[in-house]
Amino acid sequence: MAQINENYFKLQAGYLFPEIGRRVREYQELHPQVEIIKMGIGDVTQPLTPSIIRAFHEGVEEMSAARTFKGYGPEQGYDFLREAIAKNDYKDRGADIHADEIFVSDGSKCDTGNILEIFGPGNIIAVQDPVYPVYVDTSVMAGRTGKSLGNGYYDGIVYLPCTAENGFIPEIPAKKVDIIFLCYPNNPTGTTATREELNKWVEYAIRNKAIILYDAAYEAYISDSETPHSIYEIEGAREVAIEFRSFSKTAGFTGTRCAYTVIPKSLVASVSDGSERPLHPLWFRRHTTKFNGVSYPVQKAAAAIYTPEGKREVKSMISYYMNNAGILRESLTGMGFKVYGGINAPYVWINSGRGIRSWDLFDKLLHEANVVGTPGSGFGPSGEGYFRFSSFAAHEHVLKALERLKNLKW
Amino acid sequence: MAQINENYFKLQAGYLFPEIGRRVREYQELHPQVEIIKMGIGDVTQPLTPSIIRAFHEGVEEMSAARTFKGYGPEQGYDFLREAIAKNDYKDRGADIHADEIFVSDGSKCDTGNILEIFGPGNIIAVQDPVYPVYVDTSVMAGRTGKSLGNGYYDGIVYLPCTAENGFIPEIPAKKVDIIFLCYPNNPTGTTATREELNKWVEYAIRNKAIILYDAAYEAYISDSETPHSIYEIEGAREVAIEFRSFSKTAGFTGTRCAYTVIPKSLVASVSDGSERPLHPLWFRRHTTKFNGVSYPVQKAAAAIYTPEGKREVKSMISYYMNNAGILRESLTGMGFKVYGGINAPYVWINSGRGIRSWDLFDKLLHEANVVGTPGSGFGPSGEGYFRFSSFAAHEHVLKALERLKNLKW
Repeated sequence: MAQINENYFKLQAGYLFPEIGRRVREYQELHPQVEIIKMGIGDVTQPLTPSIIRAFHEGVEEMSAARTFKGYGPEQGYDFLREAIAKNDYKDRGADIHADEIFVSDGSKCDTGNILEIFGPGNIIAVQDPVYPVYVDTSVMAGRTGKSLGNGYYDGIVYLPCTAENGFIPEIPAKKVDIIFLCYPNNPTGTTATREELNKWVEYAIRNKAIILYDAAYEAYISDSETPHSIYEIEGAREVAIEFRSFSKTAGFTGTRCAYTVIPKSLVASVSDGSERPLHPLWFRRHTTKFNGVSYPVQKAAAAIYTPEGKREVKSMISYYMNNAGILRESLTGMGFKVYGGINAPYVWINSGRGIRSWDLFDKLLHEANVVGTPGSGFGPSGEGYFRFSSFAAHEHVLKALERLKNLKW
Repeated sequence: MAQINENYFKLQAGYLFPEIGRRVREYQELHPQVEIIKMGIGDVTQPLTPSIIRAFHEGVEEMSAARTFKGYGPEQGYDFLREAIAKNDYKDRGADIHADEIFVSDGSKCDTGNILEIFGPGNIIAVQDPVYPVYVDTSVMAGRTGKSLGNGYYDGIVYLPCTAENGFIPEIPAKKVDIIFLCYPNNPTGTTATREELNKWVEYAIRNKAIILYDAAYEAYISDSETPHSIYEIEGAREVAIEFRSFSKTAGFTGTRCAYTVIPKSLVASVSDGSERPLHPLWFRRHTTKFNGVSYPVQKAAAAIYTPEGKREVKSMISYYMNNAGILRESLTGMGFKVYGGINAPYVWINSGRGIRSWDLFDKLLHEANVVGTPGSGFGPSGEGYFRFSSFAAHEHVLKALERLKNLKW
C-alpha cells in the first residue's frame, strides 16, 4: 500500500504566487475589459539583450550539425560558463572561488529547495521573516518542521523577524541553529546587509558550526560600492557558506532558466561519529545523479553576459529597472506610504501607514486601481501590513500604475 | 552544528557513468593518439532536426523583443506543449490522458529521482535488476533503503532479477511492495513488455494498492505494432501508475533538456488515517514550489516534434539508430556473443559467453579495441557478465567499432 508524504498536508495554503495568479484571473474574468498592471510576481519584462540573443542563436545553430552538436554536457555546467562565473563574479571582486566549486543549474528556486537533501533530518533551520516562501515551504514538504502553528509559523523553524523596528536586519539568534537562510539584497524587503552585519553572521556560523545558505539572486542590483555582492567577500565564509545566484533577475532569464550554486571545497558539516566531512562531494553526487545539466544553448547565452558587450547591456537593463524603483520610491512616499528598499534592490517594500492588512491592500489595489502587488504577509507573519512592489514592470506601466494609485480613496 | 545526510555514505561507488568517464579519460591521457569509440553512455550523436531547429530559433527570437518576450511560464509547461503531448502521445494511441495531467520538466533523471518526495518514508520500493542506476541511488540518498549489503544490493529494496533465464522479464514479487519502478523498453536489457505482462503488473498494483513508476523514455524505439508504448494503454493504469517520458532519446534532446511526467488525477495513495488522497495535487505543489518550468525556446523546440514534418524527421532519426542496432545485433551474434535487445530498443545487451565479468570486459574492450560500452554489473548484480552497447553512435563509428571487435583475441 503506497503511502503519501503527509508533510504536504501541513502546508497552510497554496504557494504565494499561484494564489496571487488565481485572484487576478478571477477578477479579470469578471472584468474582461480592465487592463491590470502586474507588479506582483518578481518577473522581468525587458527582452534578452542583443549579445545574449546572438549567443543563444549560435548555440541553437551548433545543435543543427553533427560536427558541433552537443549531447549530455557535464551536469555541473560547461567549463566556459563556470570559468566566466568564477572570474567575473568572484575573483574580480576579491572572492576566492574556483570554477570547480560552481554548479550550474536551471534555477535558484530548485537549488535552494534541493540543497536540504544533503543535510541530515535533525538540523534546526532559521529563516528571515518575512522571506522568499520557498525556503520554508520546501522545509515543510521535506519533513524538517513540525506542524503549522496556525499563525503563519511552523513548529521547529526559527524565525528571525525583520521589521521597520529593527531596520529589517535580523538579530543574531539567541538560540543555536544549524542552517540559516539569508537573502541579500533581500526579497521581499529590498534591504541589504553591510559588511559588518555579514561578518557577524559568518562569525556566528563558525562559532556554532552552522551553515549559511546565502541567496544572492539580486546582487546585480547593488548600486553602492560598499555593500558586498557575495558572502565570500567576508573572511571565513568559505568555511561556512553556500551561495545561490541566478541569471533570472541579473539578465532577464526568468523564462530562459539558468542559475548556479557555489559550494566551496573547504566547507564541511558534522557526522554523527563526531567527524566532519566536506559537502562538495555530496552535492556533486546529488547533482550528477539527479540532474542532467542545463540546456547547452542556454549556457552559451548565459556566458554572453560576461563579455564586455553583454556586461554593458545588462547594466543598462538593470538601470532601467532601478529607474522604475526610484520613481516608485518617490511617488509612493509622496502618497503617504512608508517606503523601504528600492535602492540596492529591485523591490520596494511599503507600509500603508493606515493599519490595513496586506491581503486587504492587495484586494483594494486589484479592485480599485487594477494594480497587482504582493501582500507582505505572504512572505511571513512579520510581513503583515507590508506590501511589495516589483520594479520589473515596463516603465510606462509603472507610471500608469502610480497615476491610478494617486487617485485611490482611503 | 550542521549535520550531513549520512545516507550518502551508504552509496557504494560513483554513479556508473562518471566512473566510465574516469576510466576512459585515464586511458586516453596515457594513449593520446588513440581514437576511442564511445558506445557506453546512452547519448545521442545526431543533430536536432530542421523543424526542431527552426522552432528553437523562433523561440529565441521571441525573447529578443518586449512584445513577444516570455518571463516565468507555467511551472508545469506551456499549454501548447502539454496539449500536443496529450493528443499525440496518448489520445491518438487510445490512452485517456489529459493535458493538465502532464508536467513538463527538464529531464526524466530529475523526475524519477524527485518523485519519491511525494511518498512517505515507509514505502517498500521494488526495482528491476539490472536497472537504470538512478532509481536505486536516489532511493539510497533519500534514506529509503538500509545499508549496502556489499554484494551490490541495498537492504530494504526488493530486487526483481531479469536474466536470460527468465527472458529478462521479472516475476511478479511474492512479497508485497508499495512502489515499483518499471522501465520499458528496458534500459539496459533492451527488452519490452507485452500487453499481457503489463496487465499482470497493473493487476498486482490494484490488488496491493501499489504504485507503478513507469519509465518509458525509449518508447519511440518500439517498432512492432503490438507492444504498448504507454502504461496507460493498459486498463486500470490510470489508478496505479505514473509515467515518465523524455525527448532525450526520442528527438535527440540530451543536451537540449526536455521531458515530462504524467500523473493521472485518478491516482491515489494511502494516508495513515486510512483514507486515500490523490497524488496529482502533491506533485503539482512540489513542481510549482521547487521548479520554475523549462526554458521557453526549448519548449517551442519540443512542440515541433509533434508537427507532421517533425514527426517524419524524428522517425527517420530513430531509423538511423535502429539500423545501427540491427548491425550490432547481427555482427555481435556472428562473433559468438549471446545477443539480446536491439529490436524495440536502442540498447543491445550481450553476454560474452566466455564467463568474463562485466568490468573486465569493459577494460578489455577499452584497452584492446578502444571501444567503450557499459558493464552490465553497473546496472545491478544480475547484470554481471553482461554488457550494454548503445546504438546512438554515428553509423561509421559503429562499423569501425565492430571491425575492431572482430579482431579481438580471447
